[in-house]
Amino acid sequence: MATAANSVPYPTLISVDPFIPSEQQKGIHNRWHPDIPPIATVKPGETFKIECVDWTGAQIGNNDNSDDVKDVDLNKVHNLSGPIAVEGAEPGDCLVVDILDVQPFEKMPWGYTGIFELENGGGLFAREFKSRAAKAIWDLKGIYATSRHIPGVRFAGVTHPGLIGTAPSAELLATWNKREQELIDQHPNAIPVVALPPEPKGAYVGQELDDSVREKIYREGARTIPGREHGGNCDIKNLSRGSRCYFPVFIKGANLSVGDLHFSQGDGEMSFCGAIEMAGIITFSTSIIKGGVEKFALKQPIFLPSPVDPMYSQKLVFEGLGVDIHGDGKQYNMDASVAYKQAALNAIAYLMKARKIHPPSLFSSAVANSIARTAREQSYLLLSAAPVESHIGAIVDSPNACVTLGIPTGIFEHDILPNPDGFPKRSFGQCAIRSDGLL
Amino acid sequence: MATAANSVPYPTLISVDPFIPSEQQKGIHNRWHPDIPPIATVKPGETFKIECVDWTGAQIGNNDNSDDVKDVDLNKVHNLSGPIAVEGAEPGDCLVVDILDVQPFEKMPWGYTGIFELENGGGLFAREFKSRAAKAIWDLKGIYATSRHIPGVRFAGVTHPGLIGTAPSAELLATWNKREQELIDQHPNAIPVVALPPEPKGAYVGQELDDSVREKIYREGARTIPGREHGGNCDIKNLSRGSRCYFPVFIKGANLSVGDLHFSQGDGEMSFCGAIEMAGIITFSTSIIKGGVEKFALKQPIFLPSPVDPMYSQKLVFEGLGVDIHGDGKQYNMDASVAYKQAALNAIAYLMKARKIHPPSLFSSAVANSIARTAREQSYLLLSAAPVESHIGAIVDSPNACVTLGIPTGIFEHDILPNPDGFPKRSFGQCAIRSDGLL
Amino acid sequence: MATAANSVPYPTLISVDPFIPSEQQKGIHNRWHPDIPPIATVKPGETFKIECVDWTGAQIGNNDNSDDVKDVDLNKVHNLSGPIAVEGAEPGDCLVVDILDVQPFEKMPWGYTGIFELENGGGLFAREFKSRAAKAIWDLKGIYATSRHIPGVRFAGVTHPGLIGTAPSAELLATWNKREQELIDQHPNAIPVVALPPEPKGAYVGQELDDSVREKIYREGARTIPGREHGGNCDIKNLSRGSRCYFPVFIKGANLSVGDLHFSQGDGEMSFCGAIEMAGIITFSTSIIKGGVEKFALKQPIFLPSPVDPMYSQKLVFEGLGVDIHGDGKQYNMDASVAYKQAALNAIAYLMKARKIHPPSLFSSAVANSIARTAREQSYLLLSAAPVESHIGAIVDSPNACVTLGIPTGIFEHDILPNPDGFPKRSFGQCAIRSDGLL
Amino acid sequence: MATAANSVPYPTLISVDPFIPSEQQKGIHNRWHPDIPPIATVKPGETFKIECVDWTGAQIGNNDNSDDVKDVDLNKVHNLSGPIAVEGAEPGDCLVVDILDVQPFEKMPWGYTGIFELENGGGLFAREFKSRAAKAIWDLKGIYATSRHIPGVRFAGVTHPGLIGTAPSAELLATWNKREQELIDQHPNAIPVVALPPEPKGAYVGQELDDSVREKIYREGARTIPGREHGGNCDIKNLSRGSRCYFPVFIKGANLSVGDLHFSQGDGEMSFCGAIEMAGIITFSTSIIKGGVEKFALKQPIFLPSPVDPMYSQKLVFEGLGVDIHGDGKQYNMDASVAYKQAALNAIAYLMKARKIHPPSLFSSAVANSIARTAREQSYLLLSAAPVESHIGAIVDSPNACVTLGIPTGIFEHDILPNPDGFPKRSFGQCAIRSDGLL
Repeated sequence: MATAANSVPYPTLISVDPFIPSEQQKGIHNRWHPDIPPIATVKPGETFKIECVDWTGAQIGNNDNSDDVKDVDLNKVHNLSGPIAVEGAEPGDCLVVDILDVQPFEKMPWGYTGIFELENGGGLFAREFKSRAAKAIWDLKGIYATSRHIPGVRFAGVTHPGLIGTAPSAELLATWNKREQELIDQHPNAIPVVALPPEPKGAYVGQELDDSVREKIYREGARTIPGREHGGNCDIKNLSRGSRCYFPVFIKGANLSVGDLHFSQGDGEMSFCGAIEMAGIITFSTSIIKGGVEKFALKQPIFLPSPVDPMYSQKLVFEGLGVDIHGDGKQYNMDASVAYKQAALNAIAYLMKARKIHPPSLFSSAVANSIARTAREQSYLLLSAAPVESHIGAIVDSPNACVTLGIPTGIFEHDILPNPDGFPKRSFGQCAIRSDGLL
Repeated sequence: MATAANSVPYPTLISVDPFIPSEQQKGIHNRWHPDIPPIATVKPGETFKIECVDWTGAQIGNNDNSDDVKDVDLNKVHNLSGPIAVEGAEPGDCLVVDILDVQPFEKMPWGYTGIFELENGGGLFAREFKSRAAKAIWDLKGIYATSRHIPGVRFAGVTHPGLIGTAPSAELLATWNKREQELIDQHPNAIPVVALPPEPKGAYVGQELDDSVREKIYREGARTIPGREHGGNCDIKNLSRGSRCYFPVFIKGANLSVGDLHFSQGDGEMSFCGAIEMAGIITFSTSIIKGGVEKFALKQPIFLPSPVDPMYSQKLVFEGLGVDIHGDGKQYNMDASVAYKQAALNAIAYLMKARKIHPPSLFSSAVANSIARTAREQSYLLLSAAPVESHIGAIVDSPNACVTLGIPTGIFEHDILPNPDGFPKRSFGQCAIRSDGLL
Repeated sequence: MATAANSVPYPTLISVDPFIPSEQQKGIHNRWHPDIPPIATVKPGETFKIECVDWTGAQIGNNDNSDDVKDVDLNKVHNLSGPIAVEGAEPGDCLVVDILDVQPFEKMPWGYTGIFELENGGGLFAREFKSRAAKAIWDLKGIYATSRHIPGVRFAGVTHPGLIGTAPSAELLATWNKREQELIDQHPNAIPVVALPPEPKGAYVGQELDDSVREKIYREGARTIPGREHGGNCDIKNLSRGSRCYFPVFIKGANLSVGDLHFSQGDGEMSFCGAIEMAGIITFSTSIIKGGVEKFALKQPIFLPSPVDPMYSQKLVFEGLGVDIHGDGKQYNMDASVAYKQAALNAIAYLMKARKIHPPSLFSSAVANSIARTAREQSYLLLSAAPVESHIGAIVDSPNACVTLGIPTGIFEHDILPNPDGFPKRSFGQCAIRSDGLL
Repeated sequence: MATAANSVPYPTLISVDPFIPSEQQKGIHNRWHPDIPPIATVKPGETFKIECVDWTGAQIGNNDNSDDVKDVDLNKVHNLSGPIAVEGAEPGDCLVVDILDVQPFEKMPWGYTGIFELENGGGLFAREFKSRAAKAIWDLKGIYATSRHIPGVRFAGVTHPGLIGTAPSAELLATWNKREQELIDQHPNAIPVVALPPEPKGAYVGQELDDSVREKIYREGARTIPGREHGGNCDIKNLSRGSRCYFPVFIKGANLSVGDLHFSQGDGEMSFCGAIEMAGIITFSTSIIKGGVEKFALKQPIFLPSPVDPMYSQKLVFEGLGVDIHGDGKQYNMDASVAYKQAALNAIAYLMKARKIHPPSLFSSAVANSIARTAREQSYLLLSAAPVESHIGAIVDSPNACVTLGIPTGIFEHDILPNPDGFPKRSFGQCAIRSDGLL
């Protein structure tokens, strides 16, 4: 038949099974190191696909308790697919990467958002909320996500890789490890920890390697939690399918790796495992701009966001300043992180009013009032996962940075605008909590 | 004639002249204090206008040097119009304010953006750039702004009040002054200063007052630089004409004041006097939601942005992390302010490449290379004033916060996208500098 | 004071009073003719203002009956301000016109939308509805419009000139008059008339003219109702403030005229006087592209819409086909006009359900049911004036053209989405009708 | 592993092979008739998938000549997948259909746009252009399409079903056939034909059926070209993935059918086979609103477009009026179809200037100048397939309807805005033409 001729699917360069532990699969690695060899090589201009497990490597299940979140092994993250070498790329070049599509596996049409325990992973409000594990499972229905653990909302995904980057050079890697160790040394007993040093335990490179190379990678390889000069775990929701990204190249071949796919995420990804985490397939093409680092003063990636973005034009916006008005009232000095947190707490407190029957206060005792806590945790999960927008308002009006957080009203199936009569009584169930009932 | 009947203009409750020093005019004040009496009272539902001088009170001129910026008297800012009392508003209520329009005066169709001296006002990069006064004058042509000091760009304004708020209660005022003094005490010799305490010098309330009241206001009145729980100088570009805002009410009548009108601003307003500052006319209507503070958990203002916003859909986005990669390479601990600064420096460095003939590095010596400095200062001014978008990407990936800064490409009359051939040679003049030529 | 120097307002080249009959004012004309001399001349690059009366020349009042609409004198329309000559423009050039702003007069902060009588002006459904005069007065509050005659809606204006064009050459004028007369001759008894021939009665040029010139203009001058090759009365809502337009030039100087300002309009402007008609002030600048007609194959104007447009992203969309399903069921042959009408009737029928208590059918008898008629007329007026979007869906699927009409849901203060329970009972008053009560 | 549990893919209710002739496959039909039994039944709330061949049923190939387009058998179109019955749906109900996703087959990552011969299918300009077969093949790369036959453009798809509808009742079917036959009878010798009557030749229902039933369906079944009251071939580009549609139900079960998937389409789909036609997979869920036809005055489908839509905010807009200025200059009477055609011809003429070396006129002789013809045909194909927007401007300004057609400038890899210097010389290859070279 006419249509069969010349119908050539794009090649899948790395195939994984989202149901198999990542440490049993080829083409996955979970540390950054220049000596990890490319698992495949592409020519500029080729279109190709890469499959990715979820960031934890199949540790979290589609069920109704959060014990898997409580017990997650963070030494094994993030599970990245790659590296992919690009022919002709050399240090000082700019690697242009087109993110052509990001899709979940057909056989795994769901994702999850988690609140991690204070002592195991934490999250933006781990200390304030004394966080216990909680979770929401999301059903991915075409372009939309809904959750039985957060009823009453439905939204279109802004699907993207949370983590994508080129490989560091040996020098750059050394710089990372040095500066982060200095920070760790300054905060020796912090909970949650301020940064993670290289750690052979849990390290993995799914390729044949000489033992000495493997040992070196495991010993020196940078951890994947923070974003860095090469990109990495930037968790930028607008780096979504359709984006064009410009990466600096640090080693021959560029060695691109990707993982931590997100069906959706809010600006800030506040609960840490705050996106809708998923396994899936990403489609790429690449090109090279010779000498791009110098041409564009390229110290970090730059990108053109996708022309396709959910248009939830109406937003309810919360302000936050660099004063801990939800806590001890302390005045900070031009601190946008504190300001973001205040805006988020204002939004959570509002949602608890808008979506719950007489919820008590934001920092209620866990024992006294589990209804309030689950209302709060639902709101925390929702603001992490939904396409909320957080802007730096002003960062020059000493001593207060001003940060805003805008919730798109179109994601709710009910009206959440300020109502002169207050909000009607509603009940929205609860998110998944620990099987021991601890909150 | 048919049209004349029932044609009733909206009343102007406060009239000012943008050409007369603010301290000679009625209805202006420049400190926050509950004892400043309302200059006018409105009923809920009325539409009315308020005129405002520019934030400095006519200190900056439409000319081609920056001496006025260098010598600006910051004890006299911000010059606010108000307060306006709203009948029936009581503490604990929510004051709903519709910002129906914001327009420049017909007789003053221009505004300005300034870089303040390191020692007098500063700005986000005052220390890094060792800032000397610089300025751009913008011609306001209908919905657009252009500048002879920054050729090659034209953009639609997202016109808004930089500063709007209800009056604090005596208790709230005391809280502000206490917490800010504690911060000042912790940084006794900071340049620029970290915060400003109450200061009678330059204080002004343009009303008849008993001496004792005036003296009390001047002695206790909070300074206007930072935003606070009542709103204030939040400098949020999306609080633009068409927005609906929900303010907490702290005293009887609410006592709304407004000023610091901006024709346009970028997220962050990085150069401090970074918006297109203008004098003008704002149109309001109000309503009251009784008990709104409790109903909506309203610790700070919330708002619905205008449905009208410039649609520059394509943006070139720069990433920034909490590492001072443009400076000493220091690793910060989850610091979104540092991340914003890095994103901004990446953007400035890029614009210097895209818009200048062989510009040298970002922190070049002022003596050695004034061309580079004016290119940098133009970019700094432009990113402050144009509708750039800065999002919190992720704020949970320890130790690095990730902040993005997106420049709308549609504001340029030439192509600024990354070009495989690098950028063609261009010249874009220079911004206004000091008459003594110091840079 | 610093701000006073160099503060130069943009010049107003034509000043009118919206409360004085247009035929008593200078700089107004209501016919198209190459011999109307320019009232003013500008250089390319200048920014200037033009004041305009409303299209009827002050015939319609801010009151609660529609008698003025019933009796409107259509020989006196449209009242245009101009012509403005542009130095250097010659036939074959392209005149670039920047519409920098469009504002109502401060002293006349209202506009109107009218349904004209079947026998005097008509409208899209004049015959189907056997239209009697009706009207809605809109209060213009900053960027928003609301109407006491159509409660429950509020929307941001997409403010634009309904009518703007360059002067025709003598040859082009002759072509217009010839082809339109042929159409008139083919439909000798049509009600409403299919086109209007030149008509000295009511013709007006507000300038000193030789009698012979005036007589010639009045005798030959093309009527202003239809848009033509030079622009004219195109009533395109997206030609709004911020647009850049490219007009063909037919005579030396180009001779630009403008009028019929609209605060808002829906695609189609279905009730004929369907926009929110207003008097006001338009701000322009111009430039010339030599030989642009040839360079751009410019047979009619082209334009770049404003980057500023109300973002009512959610729309409820109605389909219409080229079959008169609301009438006699006739099948038309690829007729997009019929399809638009069906989509509009579907939308009107829906709004009557969504906004009224048990409304009867669309074409009810006027005598039997005035409630239904006023509900229908309110919907007709609303869809004419609000920023509804009408797209050509497909125009190749013989025999049915498909046209859609989308109502932005964000303009309503109540939910109008399809509700499984049907719509709650509501009452929305009525629009202004004739003082004799006839419907 | 944790992720494997409860991972349930959505069921595919109709599976097809896009490489096998449609008349050899199950679950496909190409006529509308109430007696076609449902091939599957769903419950409200279920999520399910339907696979579809391309509209021609695999007649068009991925190659570089247009002979397959020339010889296409239009008796065999459109090949629809279905019907799907929904439990509980009854006449008078409203069937709510969520279009959750539309994707091409992984094994067939391409689509096509065709210009049909004047005598076999035609298209909007079949007569004006004396159309010969031409075609463009598009590579579907994630969210983007590019074509080797139309170089220099790349755009994001607004992917949708061109054809979707519920089954007609016997009465409704009879109405259709009657009214369309009357039109055919009025235009007995039209080329292209004005409408197609029922035609057993080529008719197909891919199910076991009694001969009498099959014969009745083939004899009476309505052809699929036009959209009608049930939806059908409306070819509305914004009925894209993420849309929610409300269909009237005419028979028990509603019997939904779908096909003619489009990766992208411009408003109007002007070349008839004007979308990017593809085979693929559509994901649905449904619900029922009892009595919805009465509740919502539902004579035809209404819908809520997807929140996800390509944001090409800058558009270059062409005007068109109801005068044949590209042809004989005839004045039409309020004819939006003519106006659309003029806007389209203006746009095509412009693109020929912007994208070609000295192209001759729009209606050049085919023999004399094949370069001009292929430039014209490329533009015609591009405007059919890309996300152009066509609005009804005004449809009340007798005698001229005004229609606009806006081309998103962001789809071009080169600048197409009006350039004072005219356009630089470029060459963009050519589209696929007939192997005999006839143009």
